[in-house]
Parts: sequence; structure tokens; C-alpha cells
Amino acid sequence: MAHCIVKEAEKILDKPFKVLDKGFIRLVDYLGSDERIVQAARVSYGKGTDSVSKDEALIDYLMRQQHTSPFEQVVLTFHLKMPIFVARQWVRHRMGRMNELSGRFSVMQEEFYVPAKEDIDPQKKDRLERALEPVEPAEAAKIQSDLKKGQKKAYESYKDLIEKGLAREIARINLPLSLYTEFYWQMDLNNLFRFLKLRLDPHAQLEMRKYAEIILEIVRKVCPVATASFENIMLKQVAFNGEEIDALRRVLAGEANPLTGPKLDRFLTKVKTGHQM
Amino acid sequence: MAHCIVKEAEKILDKPFKVLDKGFIRLVDYLGSDERIVQAARVSYGKGTDSVSKDEALIDYLMRQQHTSPFEQVVLTFHLKMPIFVARQWVRHRMGRMNELSGRFSVMQEEFYVPAKEDIDPQKKDRLERALEPVEPAEAAKIQSDLKKGQKKAYESYKDLIEKGLAREIARINLPLSLYTEFYWQMDLNNLFRFLKLRLDPHAQLEMRKYAEIILEIVRKVCPVATASFENIMLKQVAFNGEEIDALRRVLAGEANPLTGPKLDRFLTKVKTGHQM
Amino acid sequence: MAHCIVKEAEKILDKPFKVLDKGFIRLVDYLGSDERIVQAARVSYGKGTDSVSKDEALIDYLMRQQHTSPFEQVVLTFHLKMPIFVARQWVRHRMGRMNELSGRFSVMQEEFYVPAKEDIDPQKKDRLERALEPVEPAEAAKIQSDLKKGQKKAYESYKDLIEKGLAREIARINLPLSLYTEFYWQMDLNNLFRFLKLRLDPHAQLEMRKYAEIILEIVRKVCPVATASFENIMLKQVAFNGEEIDALRRVLAGEANPLTGPKLDRFLTKVKTGHQM
Amino acid sequence: MAHCIVKEAEKILDKPFKVLDKGFIRLVDYLGSDERIVQAARVSYGKGTDSVSKDEALIDYLMRQQHTSPFEQVVLTFHLKMPIFVARQWVRHRMGRMNELSGRFSVMQEEFYVPAKEDIDPQKKDRLERALEPVEPAEAAKIQSDLKKGQKKAYESYKDLIEKGLAREIARINLPLSLYTEFYWQMDLNNLFRFLKLRLDPHAQLEMRKYAEIILEIVRKVCPVATASFENIMLKQVAFNGEEIDALRRVLAGEANPLTGPKLDRFLTKVKTGHQM
Repeated sequence: MAHCIVKEAEKILDKPFKVLDKGFIRLVDYLGSDERIVQAARVSYGKGTDSVSKDEALIDYLMRQQHTSPFEQVVLTFHLKMPIFVARQWVRHRMGRMNELSGRFSVMQEEFYVPAKEDIDPQKKDRLERALEPVEPAEAAKIQSDLKKGQKKAYESYKDLIEKGLAREIARINLPLSLYTEFYWQMDLNNLFRFLKLRLDPHAQLEMRKYAEIILEIVRKVCPVATASFENIMLKQVAFNGEEIDALRRVLAGEANPLTGPKLDRFLTKVKTGHQM
Repeated sequence: MAHCIVKEAEKILDKPFKVLDKGFIRLVDYLGSDERIVQAARVSYGKGTDSVSKDEALIDYLMRQQHTSPFEQVVLTFHLKMPIFVARQWVRHRMGRMNELSGRFSVMQEEFYVPAKEDIDPQKKDRLERALEPVEPAEAAKIQSDLKKGQKKAYESYKDLIEKGLAREIARINLPLSLYTEFYWQMDLNNLFRFLKLRLDPHAQLEMRKYAEIILEIVRKVCPVATASFENIMLKQVAFNGEEIDALRRVLAGEANPLTGPKLDRFLTKVKTGHQM
Repeated sequence: MAHCIVKEAEKILDKPFKVLDKGFIRLVDYLGSDERIVQAARVSYGKGTDSVSKDEALIDYLMRQQHTSPFEQVVLTFHLKMPIFVARQWVRHRMGRMNELSGRFSVMQEEFYVPAKEDIDPQKKDRLERALEPVEPAEAAKIQSDLKKGQKKAYESYKDLIEKGLAREIARINLPLSLYTEFYWQMDLNNLFRFLKLRLDPHAQLEMRKYAEIILEIVRKVCPVATASFENIMLKQVAFNGEEIDALRRVLAGEANPLTGPKLDRFLTKVKTGHQM
Repeated sequence: MAHCIVKEAEKILDKPFKVLDKGFIRLVDYLGSDERIVQAARVSYGKGTDSVSKDEALIDYLMRQQHTSPFEQVVLTFHLKMPIFVARQWVRHRMGRMNELSGRFSVMQEEFYVPAKEDIDPQKKDRLERALEPVEPAEAAKIQSDLKKGQKKAYESYKDLIEKGLAREIARINLPLSLYTEFYWQMDLNNLFRFLKLRLDPHAQLEMRKYAEIILEIVRKVCPVATASFENIMLKQVAFNGEEIDALRRVLAGEANPLTGPKLDRFLTKVKTGHQM
């Protein structure tokens, strides 16, 4: 039987995909494929999976029933380069296995993230996150230039301390969160889908979302069937709570919607936008 | 500020709740409460939580948005006694911390699970699990008596080998999966809710569900607000996939339902029964 | 760069290695190799690893310094068949990812573990485990035959309940712990080494140790350098506590050993046997 | 039986212990105590623990034998304030549960770490870490003042962007790694001991070590017996590999030490310093 080799995945192996201004994602290796998920599920459920004869249908069934363990049998290894403030969110996914460049041992390179003009957004009032409209182009250019100046200054001080012979682990403490770092990162497919569900959400920080979007495309090359299933069942999924299901039942039976006020608003917005609220 | 002490939880501390014929669940201790969840969330989201002024609303918000980490700050310690075949499913929840009685070190007691007559069910045809109607009472009584005989026999052989001085770890190998075992088990509230979501599901094995039902009631004593939120938002939740949300949008707009065949069936059953399919 | 392909590992891929009377271990797939460990370490420690120029020396350094994360970048997938009482210990290693045959969904086969005559040992008095000398051959043969009878009886009852149409999840509850189960199991190399350290220990149950010994040989095919390093540094390692190190210091300086009584005994036994006590 | 209340721990509950120039550690709550470890072990090993009659001896036995699960039954919750570069190392301990202040939601305060003069060390040549002798006082004062200037500048730019109405999550990207953050952190005692073993090591970064030292003292208040056992058996432990144990055996038997060159040096340094190398 040997290794699971996926033709489309082989084509992108080791190829860096650009993200943000200086970052990248590179698929280093992968273990398993759609086929492995099916093998593992057939060990688990044995004859119980015979009725679900086709692999696509079986993977859909596993995804719907939250039988998550067969998806864990697929593992992907990435090499990533990203700003530290994104890496700080990334590392919170505790099921990942990470080997990050250490500023204690290496001298850091002068590479900082500067947001594109169209990504320089004002603070939203209600949700405390970024607004949808960017600031004026002239203002954005000014902000970019100020950020660059701050980064240059911080790096000069760092370089200066290093040259004076100061310990690297101390010299680096004033480097900004926009500094690029890099790491190897390994994740199983089940946790990768949960990662993507959270990080592709419109509430996730824009920079994080840009990485998640590339990860999704890479995962699709390795496991096209499972990824299609994830998109339809998990990513586009909208969940309704007890009260909302009651309301739905009545509406479908031709009765009036018993929800009112903010509860009704949330219900209607979820249906309309297809976003979990 | 000191410990979070919850009056209703104190009342049941150390009290064994009976499960099945010889099992029990005992709350040994707990760390945190609804209040701790709120504290932890306010550290995380800072000013971002001010708009959600009331604790109940904040906990609902965290549950809806899947901000799961504040729920991890609550931990419960249980002492459980259950048949080995249930314990084998229990241990699959890897976030739990367990100390189980070892048959290598201790001589096992003669305590086996015998299902009640009304729980002796035939095999279902389609879902490969238990059917809803039990077998005939006379037949059930016969099965009970056969199970008991098998258990008695197996225990006699075990006892015999122990008395001959055989190593306990070898003497025990023919003891049946219906043997009772016991263990200390510690779980955080976030993972406990995920455990309950899976194990209260009608597809979970009946015996497992009976334990999960008691766990739910104990959790409610420790964290009444979070448990109410869990029940409404997570437990009674029904999730719809991309195609189903499209269908819903159209139906609510007065259009015809585009779903047909098994997809339509599943959609309607989900709305009608309130069960994820 | 592509996949890490290890010639010696390719040769054994998918080949079942026999364990006990009816069990096996099969290497299904692997991700990474000695080379990947080195790659990951060089990302982490950067220039800090230049002084350790050769790969063998770098891997030894990582092992000695307990820099465990580069070892996590190697993952092995196994297919295992073993008695349930062994599987119950196996599953306690929570970092493993498992898909086990379910007795709820499948009808179990009539395959039970019967210990070889020479493995039928009496209970030890002091350590409460198995003694080193087996019971008399005639007595062992009698025990074997009794175990087989008990297994046959239990399987007949099971078969009978299945034929009567009883739910599989209930019919199986009197099957013994000596029944063979099987599962897919995936583990990273860091946790696999910790698993081996515990399960190759003379205090581990004999049957478990036999599986661990085969796992060690399979791991050696995939990562020969890391496995050699593990054996010398971790497996044969004996650790001394604060008082013992003090004693050692004095003895090496030509002074008298300050340890007495049971502390002295333990110290000398550790040195003599090379076993942690 | 109720909660495990430890008198000495109650006295320090909620009391902030100062660390570095502006950081603190506060014990928020705890679950279990030395007594709980013993309870959990007695459930696991049953009669097997009777020979070890006293609690201290049982805890020592568990520590020596690496029976780690009973230690997991104790959990501590901390509130910590520390510079981001320390928090970045802290979060790598994946068994911890963390709720950290988010710069996406809150406006960060102007609080930065400035190392004390005596902690401003030059880079070591061989180990690529900090040297043992600090730089000259006048030079250190200059570095301090430069670091403060850089921090002031960075905060002014941040404040300016916030006032312009820029999204917080973007405004913060040039804040330095010396910025203070805070979080709730929960860890079980087994993983806390592993954390301390790594982070009290002389190779750990000085700032990290200062936090670890306070954590050790807090843990001692909650579990004095387990902490004493940890210090003697695990913290002061020096492990010898296969070759070194061979050498030791010969030396104790009056033979010549077969080790030579760097291997001999490492062996002698381990004995002399009591440090793992």
C-alpha cells in the first residue's frame, strides 16, 4: 500500500506561497490523504461503514457526525514566515507542533510587516475590531511611512546593541511585534479544520485570515474530498440554538416567528449572511 | 477574593449519585465557578467586554462566539465507578486526567454490570446501534440470567487463579468488559461541555448516556449560568450546512425549497426533531 | 527537497511483525526522518547550531538538552492488533491518535490471547507484580487450558446473543479482556521515545513490553540516528537525586560514601544493574 | 472530605509577588493538595500502596517511578504580568490554559521592562547565551537609558495612531517585545514540575528564571511534600547515560575510568556541579 502520494500535492511541495508583504507558507511534507481517512474509518467502524459505500459519502458522514478521529490520521508540515503578532495568535492552537526561530540564539533579520494602504483601517465602534472602510489614501501613506520609520529606528538600536556585544536575548527586547519570525509547524487535519473555521471567520484579524486562506488552498491539494466536505458542512455551517430551532419549526409550519427584538435580528442576520453571530 | 465557593455545589460535594446497577459518580472537588469564567474573560477581552455588562450576557456571548478558553479556567474532579466497556469510551476524551484502579496491583471485586430488562434492546437494522424497543420481558430475563451466569463463572476462574498464586496481571485477563472499575477523573469545563455534547447524543451508547446525564446535573450545580448557556446554545444547537442555509434563506423569502430527496429529508428531520443528523 | 524517504523503512512498510500468539504491528506510514529533526532544529536554533556541525552530534545534543520539539516533527502511523488489556494501557498515552475497531458496530472475531507456558508467572511478593520464575509446566498447561475454555464459553454466549438479534453493544459486554482488538495509531517521535522509556522498563507488563520491543525496532528503521541517541542517552539513562550526587562527588574524591541503609542499597543497585529504581 | 484547604496557601492567596521591575505573580486559586495526590494514587494502585504506609514515602515513590498521573490531580491558577518576550516562551508549555490580555480589544498601558543594570550581560562566546559577568555600570546605564527612550518613542507612536482612530489591532504592531502583558494561567502539578525543571535550569533566560523561582515558592506553599520530593528527586537530579553508568560501575569497583576526552570532561563536570550537561 505504501505512502499516500497525492499528485496535486506533490506539485506544490516546497513551493513558497507569498503572504502579506514579506511572509510565506511552504508545504514541507504531508502524511496521509483522503484515502487514509477512509482506511482509518473502516478500521474503526468496520462493517458499520459498508452501507456508506463511496469514499466521498463516508467522509461526508464522518464530518457530519463529528467522528473526528479519522481526520487526525492526516498530518501536514508547513514552513511559515509571519509577523510576531500573528505568530502569537497562531501558537495558541495547542495541538500544533512548532519549531520557531529563536531570538536568543540568532541575530534577527531586518524584516518587518508594513500593512498595505488598503489594509489600514479605522477602529470599529461596536465590535471593537477593524472597520470595513480603510482610512484615506494620503493618511494611510503617512501611517505606513511612520511605521517604517519606527521599525528602522528599532532595528538600528538592536543592531547597535548586538555590535556592542550585548547578549542577543537582551538586545532583542525592544524589537517590535511587526518583526517577521519563521517556524516549522505540524498539524493534523482535524485540528487544522478547527483552526481554519476560527481563523477564516470575518472576526479573525485580517493578517491572520490571509494566512488561513493560503493554508486552506494547500490543504485542498492534499485532501480534496475532505476539504470539500469541510467547506460545505463545517465552514459554511450556521448553527441555531434551541429557541431558534423552535422558531424555525414554527415558521416552516406556516406559523408566526415567535422571536422578537435582538433575538429576531440575530436569527435573520444569520440566515441572510450565512455567518454565525 | 479567595476560592470560588458555590453554595449549591458544596451541598453535593462527596455525595455519591447512583448510576446503572452498581456504579456511581461523586463530585470530589471543583476549581472556579461562573464568576471565574467572567474574571478570565475580562482579563482577555479587557474593555472589549464592557458593552456586555451582565455576567449572564457575557457568558452567552463567549459560548456563541466559541471563545472557549475562559471555560477552561473551571475544573471539576470526579470519582466514578463504571463498567470497563463504558470506561473504554470515557478514556478516549484525551483532555481528561485519570487515575484508574489497576488490576495489575489490586484484586478486583466481584461486581459486574447487568443491564436492566428494559435496557436489553435488539440490534437496529439501519444505524447499527440499539433499537428503540426492548426485547420481550421473558427473553430479557433469560438474557440477564445468562449474563449473570457468565460473570459468576469468569469470576470463579479469576478467584481460583489468584488463590493458586498466579500474577494478578495475568489472572485478570479473562475478566469480562462488564466488570466494574473505578477512577478519579478531572476535566475542565470547556472539554466537559464537548464531552457532554457527544455523550448526551441519542447515538451514544445508553449506558454512557446515563453517566453523562448525571454529570450534566452536577455541572449545573457548580456553574448554573454556563450550564444554562451550554444547553440553549450548544446542546440544543442544530447546525445547517451551506446548501441547507441557502434553502432556508429561500424558504424564509417565500420561495420554494430547492432541496430534494435525502437532502430534503435530512433537512426536515433536523428541524422537526431538533437533532443533528 | 520533497518527502523524507528512508530506504530501510521502505522495506518494512506494511509488513506485519508478529507479537504474542495472534497480534501484530505494521508500520503504515511515516512522516520525516533523522534529516527532518535536523532541519527543524536548525530553524529553531539558527546559527546556534553551527558549532555542532555533524547531524549525529546535533541530535545527541538535542536529546541531552531535552530540546524535544524537533523530535515531534517525525510522526509514525502503525496498525496494531493486541489484547484489550494491553490496549487499555496503550490508550493512556494521550498524545497518540487512535482509531480502534468498535464492538458497537462490528461483530468481534473469536481471537483471544493465551499466554505461552513460559509466560505464566506467579505473583511476586514485594513489588506486587510478576515473579521471574514461571509456574511448573504441568500447572501452566492446566492454566492455559482453563483460560481457553473460559474464552470459548464467553464467545459462545456472545455469538448466541448476536444470533438472537441483540444489539452488538450489549451482546459484547461479557467478552473478556483477553479478546484481540485492533487499531490505527499515530505518534510523534518525541512521545514515542517517552512511551518506549516507560514501556520497555522491567516494571511494565510483559505483554506490553513485547509490543514495545517491536516498536523500538521499527522506529530504528525510520530514524536510526535518533534511536541510537535515545538508547544511549535516555533508555540506558540512570538518574541520581541530590543526595546521591553528593555521595558520588565524595566517593570520586576518595571520601567515604555518606549514604547508609536503604538509600545506600538503592544507590548501589542503580549503579550495578543500570536500572532506575 | 470536602475541598483540600492548605493553611499556608490560604495566606498567600491573591497576594501579588513582585517579579522584575513591573511584573507580578498572584496565586488565584488551587485545586487539591499533597493529600489529593495520595488519594488519587491509592485509587490507582489500591492495595499496592499499602506497603508504602506514610504519605511522604508514597509521594517520593511516585516521583521516583515517574507515576505522574496523581500529580495531575492538583491544579493551580495564577494571574501573571510579564514582558511579551517572556510570555512567548511561557505559552510554549502547551498543557497550560491561558487567558491573555488582547491588544486587539484593549488599549495597552505604557509599561515596559527595563533590565536592571546588573542584568545587562554581554553575549557568551561558546553557548551563545548570556555571559556571567555584566557589562560596565556606566555602559549599562547608557543601555538602560537607550532602551527607555526606544520604548517611550514606540509608545508615543502607538498612542498617536490610537488617537487618530486607527484599529487597535493595527496600531499595536510596532509595540516592542518588552511591553508588559498579563494573563490568567492554569497548570497541573505534574506539568508545573516539568515547567520548573526546564525553566529553573541555568540555560533558561534570566528573566524567565526569575518568574520560575517565585512559582516554585508558591507551589511549595500549596504542596510542601510534593515540592520537597520534586527538589530532591527531579530538580537536583543528574542523569547519566549508558556509557557513563558503565564508567561509574568500574570506578566504584576500584577500576580505572574508561571515559576520556570530552566525554570524561562532561562526566566529571556533571558530578562536580550537579548540573545536567
